[in-house]
Amino acid sequence: MNIDIIISASDIKKEKIEGKTVVVIDVLRATSVMVTALKNGCEKVIPVKEVDEAIEIAKNDRSRYILGGERNALKIEGFDYSNSPLEYTKDVIKGKTVIMTTTNGTQAIKNAECAERIIIASMINGQAVADEIVKENKDVVFINAGTYGQFSMDDFITSGYIISRIKEKISVKLTDIATTSLYIYDNNKDITSFVKGATHYKRILELGLEDDLEYCLSKDITDIVPEYKNGIIKA
Amino acid sequence: MNIDIIISASDIKKEKIEGKTVVVIDVLRATSVMVTALKNGCEKVIPVKEVDEAIEIAKNDRSRYILGGERNALKIEGFDYSNSPLEYTKDVIKGKTVIMTTTNGTQAIKNAECAERIIIASMINGQAVADEIVKENKDVVFINAGTYGQFSMDDFITSGYIISRIKEKISVKLTDIATTSLYIYDNNKDITSFVKGATHYKRILELGLEDDLEYCLSKDITDIVPEYKNGIIKA
Repeated sequence: MNIDIIISASDIKKEKIEGKTVVVIDVLRATSVMVTALKNGCEKVIPVKEVDEAIEIAKNDRSRYILGGERNALKIEGFDYSNSPLEYTKDVIKGKTVIMTTTNGTQAIKNAECAERIIIASMINGQAVADEIVKENKDVVFINAGTYGQFSMDDFITSGYIISRIKEKISVKLTDIATTSLYIYDNNKDITSFVKGATHYKRILELGLEDDLEYCLSKDITDIVPEYKNGIIKA
Repeated sequence: MNIDIIISASDIKKEKIEGKTVVVIDVLRATSVMVTALKNGCEKVIPVKEVDEAIEIAKNDRSRYILGGERNALKIEGFDYSNSPLEYTKDVIKGKTVIMTTTNGTQAIKNAECAERIIIASMINGQAVADEIVKENKDVVFINAGTYGQFSMDDFITSGYIISRIKEKISVKLTDIATTSLYIYDNNKDITSFVKGATHYKRILELGLEDDLEYCLSKDITDIVPEYKNGIIKA
């Protein structure tokens, strides 16, 4: 199995992912929110690129929809929740549809639409995603959402973690960038020792969201493997 | 000073480098050849994208020109030398003009033409390039040539080495990708422990070019800082 990594949502090239299985990671925090919401019983997540688009869909039946996401890491005006996974608890989520728009994660998913299969991953479902990739046993490209079109250390080490779990079970052929992410994880298994140097980590810390960081960087809280298909993410 | 890295010749985006100082690195082996040829007294190096273009220029005065470079890491038919820096010795180079075409390094230089300043770097002139960047004290973008449009571990750790030398002398603000390259160098100061995992390292080893690898991965053999301007590289 060949494994490659694309380092940001703006570096996605059609020829690298067309017809392939991709794993989209925005660990701080969009894909962590998606996995959490689905784990806590929401029916589905609809990722959209623009705020107006999200509001337009929700208008149809406001009680059915939860509007979530961020701009500049902050809650969007008129939205129900921000991009904090800790807000998406069972009592507010169960049976609902979450419409999400974020700066990096939802853009990465939409930009990857030409892939054959789009899996949503984070630290909290890393082992489960690895198991799914092993089961499928086909070439895979990790798409790191990154931050504002830039490489993000947090997404990179998450890729390394999932690759390490895949490699425990089957033989893999890694590109240089995938080898480097595995190296980073192997030398920072606690995750935080490396991620604390990340620009986006510092930004979230500045906002006082330590609990979000701790949660998003925890391994294997759930075994659900969400998948994006025809505009919708389901577990 | 802000420092960023672009991970391959095909990932160069105009908005990231326009009007900026860039440092182009193809340590295995194009920029190592360029630095070596200039150190050994060649008058100038002309990088070109296509083989035909190189032959066309050399035709004007065959005795004045040296044709060098590679395709698929091998010497090009009709060329004088391959992409091995060890071939560019004083006795064959002095006073000549080297016309070079390679798969990654020369492409990276040509793709960076909208930058304000283009410095040519490798391990063998790493400290000298760092000193020049410190002296200029302006934002800089490292362009890793990469291999066939992919990230290359060898160019990445070379960036990390030069950044570590810059950081010793002035305060720097690193993007996440630059922080990661510095981390890689700081944990692999011998270079080879990390680079031996690189796809391109293995390819050159397969060709029996151990001496090239040892030479290209040696630090600070020379203090020349070549620069590309108006189609020509000079020391």
